[in-house]
Amino acid sequence: MAHETAHGGKKPEKKTGRLEAFSDGVFAIAITLLALDLKVPHVTPLAPGLASALVAQWPSYFAFITSFFTVLIMWVHHHLIFRLVHRTDVRLLFANGFLLMLVTVVPFSTAVVAEYLRTPAAPSAVTLYAGVFVLISIAFYLVLMAAFRPSILDPHASEGAVARLRRDYRWGPPLYLAAAIAAPFSPWLAMGICAALWIFWALTTREC
Amino acid sequence: MAHETAHGGKKPEKKTGRLEAFSDGVFAIAITLLALDLKVPHVTPLAPGLASALVAQWPSYFAFITSFFTVLIMWVHHHLIFRLVHRTDVRLLFANGFLLMLVTVVPFSTAVVAEYLRTPAAPSAVTLYAGVFVLISIAFYLVLMAAFRPSILDPHASEGAVARLRRDYRWGPPLYLAAAIAAPFSPWLAMGICAALWIFWALTTREC
Amino acid sequence: MAHETAHGGKKPEKKTGRLEAFSDGVFAIAITLLALDLKVPHVTPLAPGLASALVAQWPSYFAFITSFFTVLIMWVHHHLIFRLVHRTDVRLLFANGFLLMLVTVVPFSTAVVAEYLRTPAAPSAVTLYAGVFVLISIAFYLVLMAAFRPSILDPHASEGAVARLRRDYRWGPPLYLAAAIAAPFSPWLAMGICAALWIFWALTTREC
Amino acid sequence: MAHETAHGGKKPEKKTGRLEAFSDGVFAIAITLLALDLKVPHVTPLAPGLASALVAQWPSYFAFITSFFTVLIMWVHHHLIFRLVHRTDVRLLFANGFLLMLVTVVPFSTAVVAEYLRTPAAPSAVTLYAGVFVLISIAFYLVLMAAFRPSILDPHASEGAVARLRRDYRWGPPLYLAAAIAAPFSPWLAMGICAALWIFWALTTREC
Repeated sequence: MAHETAHGGKKPEKKTGRLEAFSDGVFAIAITLLALDLKVPHVTPLAPGLASALVAQWPSYFAFITSFFTVLIMWVHHHLIFRLVHRTDVRLLFANGFLLMLVTVVPFSTAVVAEYLRTPAAPSAVTLYAGVFVLISIAFYLVLMAAFRPSILDPHASEGAVARLRRDYRWGPPLYLAAAIAAPFSPWLAMGICAALWIFWALTTREC
Repeated sequence: MAHETAHGGKKPEKKTGRLEAFSDGVFAIAITLLALDLKVPHVTPLAPGLASALVAQWPSYFAFITSFFTVLIMWVHHHLIFRLVHRTDVRLLFANGFLLMLVTVVPFSTAVVAEYLRTPAAPSAVTLYAGVFVLISIAFYLVLMAAFRPSILDPHASEGAVARLRRDYRWGPPLYLAAAIAAPFSPWLAMGICAALWIFWALTTREC
Repeated sequence: MAHETAHGGKKPEKKTGRLEAFSDGVFAIAITLLALDLKVPHVTPLAPGLASALVAQWPSYFAFITSFFTVLIMWVHHHLIFRLVHRTDVRLLFANGFLLMLVTVVPFSTAVVAEYLRTPAAPSAVTLYAGVFVLISIAFYLVLMAAFRPSILDPHASEGAVARLRRDYRWGPPLYLAAAIAAPFSPWLAMGICAALWIFWALTTREC
Repeated sequence: MAHETAHGGKKPEKKTGRLEAFSDGVFAIAITLLALDLKVPHVTPLAPGLASALVAQWPSYFAFITSFFTVLIMWVHHHLIFRLVHRTDVRLLFANGFLLMLVTVVPFSTAVVAEYLRTPAAPSAVTLYAGVFVLISIAFYLVLMAAFRPSILDPHASEGAVARLRRDYRWGPPLYLAAAIAAPFSPWLAMGICAALWIFWALTTREC
């Protein structure tokens, strides 16, 4: 909130606009490309076949919805971090680039789960899916560490907001790691953890 | 209009910019991806085959045009709602996220109709197509209810504009539901209702 | 130019920002999707096969380059029109929507030409390609007519700029129509006209 | 830096906003489309097959990461150039358009490398890949020459920044040309040069 209240004061000009707009673009494109994983089913006994083929694709819908809201939550949190930042440097740029690269991979790992969730290959598919989120939560932590240095942080950022984000973000890597470790034994449990986590992040997001 | 006229006065700063830009991005990408459903026909007796194969794809073109203008109208209405809003909260964020998720699904349901409109599976395909629009019109109503709360609404928003949107948006779910109910009996009637509705929304849009 | 010089005066606030940003988004996505038509060739006698297969795809590259610069020019001209406009209404919104819909179709018509330019089906393919540009140039004229009405036009727009655009845009439909008429007889002549036209538009664009 | 410090002075208004936003959009879409090259493997002995099929796709991941960070660096450098510019003209517009066209081609050349890096066709594939970067580095030089003319350059741009960019950009074409020349003899060496170069650009980027 420090950002808005200080607006118009002698706060140094915010220079992160173009990086935020570029990041928003990548988030928006990646979240929309998720829907490309919904494939038109190809059925031959047409009349009853299409309806049941569409229903049989429910693992695709489940993976799509989980990924969509997880990426949406990530976008909100990306915004929460950059609101506290007033300039960028090369380290923040590359931490952010690493994060964006992993975000663009989510449609791929989602497609792998959608294809293999109901097959004997589900453990591998869900390990990949949860593994990508482990890497993303580590990337978020790297962005956080690059952003919350004195030269980068907005001097008017509230210490409370910084401390809270720093504390909250410690939970991401171990929780997704738990899902990744569970995946080889119970893919469904692992997918359930991933689905529960975005709901948990959503409920604990106090501002946006 | 309250927004523009009050500009420069003591109106609280509008904080929805990044959410609107993100939503606009998703709308723009989803509307452009609709054209990916137009497939290059693969014909073997080449010379006369291509022209007639292109003509034979007219259900694709019809579904593409209907979806394009329906999403365009939705984008206009999204803008009409957010013009009256001066901040966001978690509830509005997720109502809007639910709406955006369904918008990204439109290219999928359009592709299903394009593939099956002239086959015995048309009833299932068109039920899906109209069903997605039923969900979208419900999502719009959820966004409206999240947006038009005292803490979210721009205090300078005209009461007339709020009341009119609130009234108009009641029509969306029942009208698309009528199309979804008609689809199993007459897919063509249902597609006709969907096409008629965007023309109706367009003619009744008084401002943009 | 009126727009910039009058900035800061008592000119009414420009309200077309979100429509321009949305249009820019659609142009940017459509122009980038053109590259999806470049397909990885699948060759079996690998060693010498890939290089010659890549070279053999030159009709794809030619169609890609022609479409890319044609859409780029269209984007510049879209900007030239909207610079003279200070508000939108439903008619302008739908004229612009019709234009954007056709722009999203360009990757499809380009893919058809890329697939069939060196086959006996080239006349049909190029007729479609030029036909889409005929429709786009008509859509541009509709946008121009919707934009240059007293209620929509920026009152500070220079009369010279308005008159010049009005005059220049008359040339689009007949010139692309000539390409479409030539296509059934000589697809290569028609493609040459399309390629020559974007170079011509580029050379005659005096400002951007 | 001249741009920010001079802000608020009598510097002529910056008129490149829409061109920069359009370019950013194309960069963001092209960088996100890179992930479409990651294909879901189709395996039949499912249980152990998927994990090893995913691992066997590592050339895809290597090409994806190299292309992602190379395009990210290009986007940073595009920003560095346009920060020093205060207006556009037709020559800059088309130099920039030529650059953007080549950027949209990167997902295609990346897909070719991902498909053929471990086959006898690797020399052709990597020559294409490095060749696209040779063209991009030439396009960057054309943009630089179009941008750093007196009528286009921001009169407050620091001479040091202009001279440094002018000097640094001379290195791009010969270094990527070295990779392209090495490709027919040793595709792996050439890919290594491309991967080393983005790390080199990253380390030598002093500001962003």
